[in-house]
Amino acid sequence: MTNNQLTDSGHLRHFLTIEGLKRPLLTEIMDRAEQFSSITNRQVKKVPLLRGKTIMNLFFENSTRTRTTFELAAKRLSADVMNLNISTSATSKGESLLDTLHNLEAMHTDMFVVRHSQSGAAEFIAQHVAPHVSVINAGDGCHAHPTQAMLDMFTIRRHKQHFPDLRVAIIGDILHSRVARSQIQALSTLGVGEIRVIGPKTLLPSDCQTLGVHVYHDIDEGLRDVDVIITLRLQNERMQGALLPSAREYFQCFGLTEEKLQLAKPDAIVMHPGPINRGVEIASTVADGPQSVILEQVTHGIAIRMAVMSMALGSQSELAEGSTP
Amino acid sequence: MTNNQLTDSGHLRHFLTIEGLKRPLLTEIMDRAEQFSSITNRQVKKVPLLRGKTIMNLFFENSTRTRTTFELAAKRLSADVMNLNISTSATSKGESLLDTLHNLEAMHTDMFVVRHSQSGAAEFIAQHVAPHVSVINAGDGCHAHPTQAMLDMFTIRRHKQHFPDLRVAIIGDILHSRVARSQIQALSTLGVGEIRVIGPKTLLPSDCQTLGVHVYHDIDEGLRDVDVIITLRLQNERMQGALLPSAREYFQCFGLTEEKLQLAKPDAIVMHPGPINRGVEIASTVADGPQSVILEQVTHGIAIRMAVMSMALGSQSELAEGSTP
Amino acid sequence: MTNNQLTDSGHLRHFLTIEGLKRPLLTEIMDRAEQFSSITNRQVKKVPLLRGKTIMNLFFENSTRTRTTFELAAKRLSADVMNLNISTSATSKGESLLDTLHNLEAMHTDMFVVRHSQSGAAEFIAQHVAPHVSVINAGDGCHAHPTQAMLDMFTIRRHKQHFPDLRVAIIGDILHSRVARSQIQALSTLGVGEIRVIGPKTLLPSDCQTLGVHVYHDIDEGLRDVDVIITLRLQNERMQGALLPSAREYFQCFGLTEEKLQLAKPDAIVMHPGPINRGVEIASTVADGPQSVILEQVTHGIAIRMAVMSMALGSQSELAEGSTP
Repeated sequence: MTNNQLTDSGHLRHFLTIEGLKRPLLTEIMDRAEQFSSITNRQVKKVPLLRGKTIMNLFFENSTRTRTTFELAAKRLSADVMNLNISTSATSKGESLLDTLHNLEAMHTDMFVVRHSQSGAAEFIAQHVAPHVSVINAGDGCHAHPTQAMLDMFTIRRHKQHFPDLRVAIIGDILHSRVARSQIQALSTLGVGEIRVIGPKTLLPSDCQTLGVHVYHDIDEGLRDVDVIITLRLQNERMQGALLPSAREYFQCFGLTEEKLQLAKPDAIVMHPGPINRGVEIASTVADGPQSVILEQVTHGIAIRMAVMSMALGSQSELAEGSTP
Repeated sequence: MTNNQLTDSGHLRHFLTIEGLKRPLLTEIMDRAEQFSSITNRQVKKVPLLRGKTIMNLFFENSTRTRTTFELAAKRLSADVMNLNISTSATSKGESLLDTLHNLEAMHTDMFVVRHSQSGAAEFIAQHVAPHVSVINAGDGCHAHPTQAMLDMFTIRRHKQHFPDLRVAIIGDILHSRVARSQIQALSTLGVGEIRVIGPKTLLPSDCQTLGVHVYHDIDEGLRDVDVIITLRLQNERMQGALLPSAREYFQCFGLTEEKLQLAKPDAIVMHPGPINRGVEIASTVADGPQSVILEQVTHGIAIRMAVMSMALGSQSELAEGSTP
Repeated sequence: MTNNQLTDSGHLRHFLTIEGLKRPLLTEIMDRAEQFSSITNRQVKKVPLLRGKTIMNLFFENSTRTRTTFELAAKRLSADVMNLNISTSATSKGESLLDTLHNLEAMHTDMFVVRHSQSGAAEFIAQHVAPHVSVINAGDGCHAHPTQAMLDMFTIRRHKQHFPDLRVAIIGDILHSRVARSQIQALSTLGVGEIRVIGPKTLLPSDCQTLGVHVYHDIDEGLRDVDVIITLRLQNERMQGALLPSAREYFQCFGLTEEKLQLAKPDAIVMHPGPINRGVEIASTVADGPQSVILEQVTHGIAIRMAVMSMALGSQSELAEGSTP
């Protein structure tokens, strides 16, 4: 089996990247999230599915928002969650990353949720963990953010049903975005009719052709008749260098305004992974407008993370088939 | 309904300030806390009342002590609690406060416990949250600290029963104290016979008359024949400016010593919201003496917070009437 | 009763130091840990033994690793755990340590787990807590680290059964090591045949004779025919002063290499309390080799802490005899 995210029987063990996963698995994640979605509307938003499991949030890069969603998802599955800010602890005592990991493993940890500023960090960790541990990638460098991509797919499916009929546009800094990379892989795998990326040349990857996406440098052309618009957060640090002019100029060229939104289909939905820079990549009126599903994305993020966590730990205990929520 | 803390049917939805609340509601809070008090003496100090609820501690201002009491109260109600230190997270990414809030709401949060250095912050948040969210004010600027006031009322009731017969004196920096402001409102609402404030002119509000309190600049006069003495913490930062002489001089004028305590009724109780500055606003012998109920206040703080949390979340789910602990 | 760690009936109330504890109690801790060990291999790694109990981790000195093991142990016993970083909270408001403690006690806390850089801190706290509170020493200065010592004894017993037959060598900075001090006391109490300490003169205590240990300055002599080798972490700060030459030179004299390991019995086990300085006190090939039980120590650390916590809280509620897990 070439894909180390799956067990021999094809069930999810780790969740590191969308790359290499097949459509049925992505569909299974969304189907399971659908079941968890109904839980969050109940009086008691909790199921005993992962009771007695230990999940450790290893955040090498600070991200309160993402950590919170994983912590909440774990608690709603009744797991015990520990938050470890690794950068400030063991490594400051000169211990190697692998020693820290093996120590945490030895505490009978069942899952590491890993956030790291370096691409490949989650995969590196997955390669070295003991057989009883699952690794979930909560964002690694410019590489991947697969749970974000899946919550986006879930949000699209909630509104648009049939992926092959869709035209989806992603606007912004595709080059440095782990979110965009994972989204494109997920959209491709789910058979989306047409994937477009819109942005300045300096922020688009050179291998766009091989990704099977259509490239637009003009936002007006790129938005025409699309069903889904995904705006990306513009990282402030990009504006320091020569890659970009000012935020104001960026907004004029690539910011999603009400006027530009008119070019898309009338029932197009507007998405953003958050946190939003209002007036930079998106106008406030659009972010808060009737076509925006940005806060729905946040809601679905909990259900998707519950789905992935329960699938990975279900497969770990060879119970993947039987443990529907 | 002018008071946005209550539902249309008059039940508690938010708990932002004592102002505007009626006596029966304050009594209900204390009655319910009485029930929770017995729980904390049990072997298993826990009830499943808020199982599956999500409570987020939003502390924009650091306060380990207050956060701990809310976290403990939530855990003893079996809720899932998340501690978010907002100042260091989302806002550092340039996200607006309201965007952060709406994101946390979208995660199906049931309650925000808010501590903020700015007066009005909790009320601002309450005005903008979704209908399914309750807001508890854990202290905002110089404005209000209603759970502190209620635990103080509860402590007084435990020792003194009938409020109208009481003479209560509050000593110290009334002007800047959210605790004092909430206490005075609660004491008034509960019909306390006489409320006195004692302090230097620079630390008393100019509207004391309208608050219905008696003002004393001489501690000896102010303490005569009182049943309850509430000492306030002297904020160190007040002593930087021109408002106050040295801590030593303050103690000589307004510190509660054993000698001064003699002026009150023989069975007067001594209170303090903590943390204590020994030898500044109170002598150690008094703080640790037989008339001190300072540590009882801490104990009652858990029960009061359990009461307020369960009432607010009970009313949210339209179960206020039926969900006695 | 001279030993304030025990109740009048001889049960564990606090766990502050190995000193003064009798062999049957140490054996009871290990026996109980044996029961908990089987729990951590179950699907649901959790027992309801301490449900409704409140445990506070008071870490005056930062130690993510140790805190994590106590937090995990508490959660697997179903207790509510709170992590308080005391140094940055109440004491910054000028409150005294005892006031902070009495406040936390007043919240009906059942147990404090204390880590402090000053020797005697846990004992000081134990002397001042209310009768309903247990104190566990999670490491105080150069004084004691009793749960570490007991997990080490447990690990030895797992591999070697009969203590009187054993020869145990401890290598390194004995002088400043709370771990070594507690280990020597535990090994003595359990009747280990021969205890050796190996290190440079500057890092051995002057009272080695009275401790009943054999002193070696030559590692080759010291390791001959031992059954158990305990390597200690070399604190970097020791190398600043005149006590030690460079890390490289230390490794040449006292680092445990494969070659030196040959001098011990063929089935000798190698231990280290972690975190490891690879290439300083131990060679990587030894730390990761077949005789190393370093990660087992970590695993056993959870079971030992569950044992101690449940025994201390069991005795608190006068249920020590009946509440086997």
